[in-house]
Amino acid sequence: MGEIDKVFSEFKEHSVAEFFKKNRQMLGFSGKTRSLTTIIHEYVTNSLDAAEEAKVAPEISVEIKEIDKEKYHVRVQDNALGIPEKHIGKVFGVMLAGTKFHRYVQQRGQQGIGATGCTMFSQVTTGKPVHVISAYDKKVVTCDVEVDFKTNGALVSNMAKEEQDGSRRGVTVEADFAEVKYDKSSYGVFEYLKRTAIANPHAKITLLDPFGETHVFPRSVEQIPPKPMPVLPHPLGLAKNDLLEFAHADKENMKVSSFLQNSLARVSAQKVKELESLCAGVDFSKKPADMSWDDADKIVGAFGQVKWIAPATDAIIPIGQEQITKSLQSILNPEFLSVRERPPKIYRGGIPFIIEAAIAYGGQSGKQVAEGTQPEILRYANRAPLIFDSAGCSITESVKNIEWSRYGLKNFDQLPITILVNIVSVHIPYTGAGKQAISDEEEVVGEIRSAVMEVARDLQRHMSGLRSEKDRAARKNAVLRYVGQLSGDLAELSGKDTKAALEKKLILLIEGKYTKQLEESNDSIPEDAASGGSEGDDDEKEE
Amino acid sequence: MGEIDKVFSEFKEHSVAEFFKKNRQMLGFSGKTRSLTTIIHEYVTNSLDAAEEAKVAPEISVEIKEIDKEKYHVRVQDNALGIPEKHIGKVFGVMLAGTKFHRYVQQRGQQGIGATGCTMFSQVTTGKPVHVISAYDKKVVTCDVEVDFKTNGALVSNMAKEEQDGSRRGVTVEADFAEVKYDKSSYGVFEYLKRTAIANPHAKITLLDPFGETHVFPRSVEQIPPKPMPVLPHPLGLAKNDLLEFAHADKENMKVSSFLQNSLARVSAQKVKELESLCAGVDFSKKPADMSWDDADKIVGAFGQVKWIAPATDAIIPIGQEQITKSLQSILNPEFLSVRERPPKIYRGGIPFIIEAAIAYGGQSGKQVAEGTQPEILRYANRAPLIFDSAGCSITESVKNIEWSRYGLKNFDQLPITILVNIVSVHIPYTGAGKQAISDEEEVVGEIRSAVMEVARDLQRHMSGLRSEKDRAARKNAVLRYVGQLSGDLAELSGKDTKAALEKKLILLIEGKYTKQLEESNDSIPEDAASGGSEGDDDEKEE
Repeated sequence: MGEIDKVFSEFKEHSVAEFFKKNRQMLGFSGKTRSLTTIIHEYVTNSLDAAEEAKVAPEISVEIKEIDKEKYHVRVQDNALGIPEKHIGKVFGVMLAGTKFHRYVQQRGQQGIGATGCTMFSQVTTGKPVHVISAYDKKVVTCDVEVDFKTNGALVSNMAKEEQDGSRRGVTVEADFAEVKYDKSSYGVFEYLKRTAIANPHAKITLLDPFGETHVFPRSVEQIPPKPMPVLPHPLGLAKNDLLEFAHADKENMKVSSFLQNSLARVSAQKVKELESLCAGVDFSKKPADMSWDDADKIVGAFGQVKWIAPATDAIIPIGQEQITKSLQSILNPEFLSVRERPPKIYRGGIPFIIEAAIAYGGQSGKQVAEGTQPEILRYANRAPLIFDSAGCSITESVKNIEWSRYGLKNFDQLPITILVNIVSVHIPYTGAGKQAISDEEEVVGEIRSAVMEVARDLQRHMSGLRSEKDRAARKNAVLRYVGQLSGDLAELSGKDTKAALEKKLILLIEGKYTKQLEESNDSIPEDAASGGSEGDDDEKEE
Repeated sequence: MGEIDKVFSEFKEHSVAEFFKKNRQMLGFSGKTRSLTTIIHEYVTNSLDAAEEAKVAPEISVEIKEIDKEKYHVRVQDNALGIPEKHIGKVFGVMLAGTKFHRYVQQRGQQGIGATGCTMFSQVTTGKPVHVISAYDKKVVTCDVEVDFKTNGALVSNMAKEEQDGSRRGVTVEADFAEVKYDKSSYGVFEYLKRTAIANPHAKITLLDPFGETHVFPRSVEQIPPKPMPVLPHPLGLAKNDLLEFAHADKENMKVSSFLQNSLARVSAQKVKELESLCAGVDFSKKPADMSWDDADKIVGAFGQVKWIAPATDAIIPIGQEQITKSLQSILNPEFLSVRERPPKIYRGGIPFIIEAAIAYGGQSGKQVAEGTQPEILRYANRAPLIFDSAGCSITESVKNIEWSRYGLKNFDQLPITILVNIVSVHIPYTGAGKQAISDEEEVVGEIRSAVMEVARDLQRHMSGLRSEKDRAARKNAVLRYVGQLSGDLAELSGKDTKAALEKKLILLIEGKYTKQLEESNDSIPEDAASGGSEGDDDEKEE
């Protein structure tokens, strides 16, 4: 055997399950505290998505019991649709499987990796499968699920079924995990659930912690957010290769022209005509399956020259100014709060997204560290809190890169400020499979920056209002100090009024002047500072 | 169809190729400059690995031609073993395939994703396959390779073969890429290759850039680094699940006892006896295939109680103090340089790794920014430069978290300092598939910190030497200033010597005293500051 054959005799293909088992840090399984938070994150995320899908108000219960040193039993239960028997294995035992991955729809989980990653971690650290109970229709199905790492396939065992009257619904997943730790740090499960509650005020979340304490994050908003609808891909969001693949997979349309109209968003018959006139040599009446790269190249080129209506907004549902305001008011009780929602934009050509941002000042805002108070950044993607990898995240970068001194906040690093940023999209550009940081897509970074700058301006207005109030008070007091002397002198000089009478008149005059100034100045600050303003965005949500 | 069936009717499995096509930012394909650097990184990394495997001094040529706006033709050629015909498709068209992924051996690439990721990016942006020329044995094979995203399979076309006399060897890969940009920023290809050359002084790398300029990074060291040998897994590095899988896959051993001895590193017959005595109820004479989770649980538990020899060091090959010194001397010409290599350690229970670090001060050290000079951090993993994601990397974090003022460097942020850190391991704990940042594994972070603190102490000694030299010079000059007056006064008082004679004697006395002090003080600084000291590590490489 030659040298080269020897080298390549070891050539092998691996399953994606094997890959993530060996690189489990990429899924968030590094460090004991982080690993446990990752587990809760994956299960709770799936439960919230399922509740949204089922249009029910989510009720999620999380139980964590210590069963040995750094070994815990975890149980997460929801009240959503449940999972049909034949799909349980795939949800918990196959990576890259899910309802979400291929659809253009806003969801917290979007990769179809998370829950299977937890099964992997349970197997690797305890050798045990996860136990799943799924209640749906008039059945309750229970089984154990393991990952077959060689094939990225699910091993389902101990399947049992029971009849029920249909009153029970939802999924319960239970498993043992070792090499994890429950703690109360800002990276722990409690903090994670607290942040989840802030962005999901329509959910009721209960945590039974390993110390036997029960924490309830109650539902503070009765209204369930609208269900995000899947959208057809927008022409501006398509790579040539995507268009080609869509066309080749198409079985419903006889012609390229009808394929474009039916499979993409915002393509009307009129637009097809425009496109046709821009694509010399492309036959729009050929079968979609016969589309060539050159055709796709020309069509995508033409997409860039035509004016398009922006992607539909009903596909992406922000938390909303009202709900963010309520959440932050109740948790931080801030002196000042501004919440802004930017209009929908697109990135990477055509993936729609919305940024919303809030800034809170005073009250419980900011975080306490050894040296005093520091600003705190609450990052969210599709309402799911991002707790880890903050240093590599575009949200953190954007906030840090803002010149806060230009907003009158010279000692920004020591101020009691909480900044919340939520990115909402049908496809969040995460930096990694661990879904904890936002990649630096140009358009996304620009929007995050604009949103944070808007709320920063609001805070600046509030602070300069405070400052001029303070200045006026100081000036008024300085003037008042002279009143006694002045009124005595005037009384003597004029011989008309007594000193006391003059003093009273002078005080009234001064008070009157400074109060009027104050009123005028207040008029220039937005009346309801808490909800901010929208500066030209026709935003119906504003109170 | 019920609601739940409707939801799950969209349930699908996806290939890993599809996943990374949709999440290409996870592979480093985000931003035009970064995407091009990622492409060169993947190809050059593979070429360097192949040269090491073939034990040849690497000669790599990179050509980048602009063929349209933000569209380039890239060609990378090496002089290594080549790739056999039947494996070309898998190397360039299948993700998670490679010789590297499953072996415990130090390599730059370790995932089997990179080159296929480039093919994916070429297809997505230009619709074209990559063109591969592989010269090996007495053949030259050429073909085109594409990724079949649906199956994560390779589509190989236009295969052609030629005979040759065996003098030609190596791989050439050529492809077109759009949505990329060549620039001279610190994130660009030129900087990437410069950093590669620093850590690989045994390689000759030539770049023909889009402006038609040729840049040669010459071979500055003739000695080829030793070929890293694959190692058997160390008992302390095994999760229970790994041990179980290894045992179940074992076909060569009749008993658990012989399996342990033959399949793991550092397990002797004596150690097997020790393990047996610690594993009550485990039958060491049963077949490896019959090992149960409980058995694996007990055996891995026993692994933790037995004393083990550390993992073999020949498995991991650092750049070496001599070569780092030569590289940094020639590029930075610093006033001071210290290079340290830490002894091998293990992380995650038993994956061996070594940290080496260098600090350079003065000369061309540091980086020039608008505000002046700043410290620069050169990060490496298995000699491959890490250019992106620095904020989320343990190396950057460790350097930033050091209290530099404690090392006498109060204005650290403005000093002309370059810090180099290289992590060498059989498995680098990257934070993501883009392989640009090191995860925060506890033991790795600790070693990075220790290494940087060692070189920081060396720099401190140098700086305090400089400082006391300066202080002494000032004191000497102060004393010398009085010599004229003093010698005149003395001459007058004593009436013995003339002023001139006294002055001469006094000067000799003062010069003598300060010179002696200087010599004594120099003795306390390591003689060869460039190679540092090893402080108790029995380091044979030290000069």
